[in-house]
Amino acid sequence: MSEHVYNLLKKHHSVRSFKKEPISEEHIKQLVEAGQSASTSSYLQTYSIVGVQDPEIKEDLKEVSGQPYVVENGYLFVFVMDYYRHSIINEESKSNMETSFESAEGLLVGTIDATLVAQNIAATAEDMGYGIVYLGSLRNDIERVREVLNLPEHTFPLFGMALGVPEDDEDGSPKPRLPFEHVFHQDRYNTDKEQQREALKLYDQTVSEYYQARTNGERSETWSNQISNFMSSKQRLDMLEQLNKAGFIKK
Amino acid sequence: MSEHVYNLLKKHHSVRSFKKEPISEEHIKQLVEAGQSASTSSYLQTYSIVGVQDPEIKEDLKEVSGQPYVVENGYLFVFVMDYYRHSIINEESKSNMETSFESAEGLLVGTIDATLVAQNIAATAEDMGYGIVYLGSLRNDIERVREVLNLPEHTFPLFGMALGVPEDDEDGSPKPRLPFEHVFHQDRYNTDKEQQREALKLYDQTVSEYYQARTNGERSETWSNQISNFMSSKQRLDMLEQLNKAGFIKK
Repeated sequence: MSEHVYNLLKKHHSVRSFKKEPISEEHIKQLVEAGQSASTSSYLQTYSIVGVQDPEIKEDLKEVSGQPYVVENGYLFVFVMDYYRHSIINEESKSNMETSFESAEGLLVGTIDATLVAQNIAATAEDMGYGIVYLGSLRNDIERVREVLNLPEHTFPLFGMALGVPEDDEDGSPKPRLPFEHVFHQDRYNTDKEQQREALKLYDQTVSEYYQARTNGERSETWSNQISNFMSSKQRLDMLEQLNKAGFIKK
Repeated sequence: MSEHVYNLLKKHHSVRSFKKEPISEEHIKQLVEAGQSASTSSYLQTYSIVGVQDPEIKEDLKEVSGQPYVVENGYLFVFVMDYYRHSIINEESKSNMETSFESAEGLLVGTIDATLVAQNIAATAEDMGYGIVYLGSLRNDIERVREVLNLPEHTFPLFGMALGVPEDDEDGSPKPRLPFEHVFHQDRYNTDKEQQREALKLYDQTVSEYYQARTNGERSETWSNQISNFMSSKQRLDMLEQLNKAGFIKK
């Protein structure tokens, strides 16, 4: 009965400014090993990890992401959904596995497997004293990422992760999450819209106060504001096309 | 610099037989809290967690999964991709957010977010001394799960997790994972099929020996055997239809 992990994870916040100190090869191996130890759906292991150190490749990925910490970090991972090796087995065994990796089920399995690996790496890295930030922004230009990382068919870059020793002035307070009562449902989902609206109102207040306190009153938006602004901005509408091109979700 | 998490995660193996001991409400709250502390894409928090204790609901879900440990465990979670609360915000703010949660990007974000939460819960539970097993098998009958858990539109049950105190005779050796060199790519993906085939051959040998040692020679299949058998069996081909029905991946 240890509370080490609970206490560690509770402190999590994304770190976006890192010291120049690189992460040692030994630590990278340990991180990948911890990642691979995660559960994997039906033992399929439908992921690969690209470890990026080449400065040119980092620059290219920074252009896709728009974030300076894609270049300025201790290390950069890209997490790839990967059925390439399964497609090699398919060629050898002539067993008609295409449907499996081209189906929506295959997409869910691949996305879930890769994400389990990534989150193990995140927790292990934070325990080692590093900070991490996920980079969904690599999905801004999937074609470019595929080209730069030489990704073959039946693979798909899901997200990146920058990590490293946090800068000393790095500000470390976790953002308030949705209240327990709002995300947790006992036995059956509570669809009551009135209750959800009430809960959101309270949470909006919490988030607004959090921003006000951190910005001396300059920012005060609620969670609902942020969500409606962000989600009405129509992000990455080419994703289905990109998935199709890579051989996913055809069925 | 701690290696606690590394050592913990390296020991991970799925546990499928639990003592009758229930998990306390306090621990459930801590687990959910640790889960919620995970990174979330653009602060969207696109998940809900259903905690199932009702014996009838557990029985229903066991029928879907086919696994006895869906009923026999210390606790049962179902992880749900959830844009229901975002759809409520959308109704209120009239901001045309539909595209966001109906797009393939929305599906990726939702699946990734829910999985990050789940893996935090898995690591925290194992640190507390519990064992866990993921239940992708709940996707065997999405319609039934939706009905039993009262899931509204814009939500989707991704997987479950059974947890509890492991039975004393529970056998705890992690299954061998793909070798580091096979899943890790330095800077650019190595697409060389000949090298991949060679690596798979070696890994096949490792997996075959692992099964032989554990079953006194009764089982000896390779990883490639398992993969080609499993993936040619055409699993859950209704997933795209089910996602569409729930309001996902329409664009």
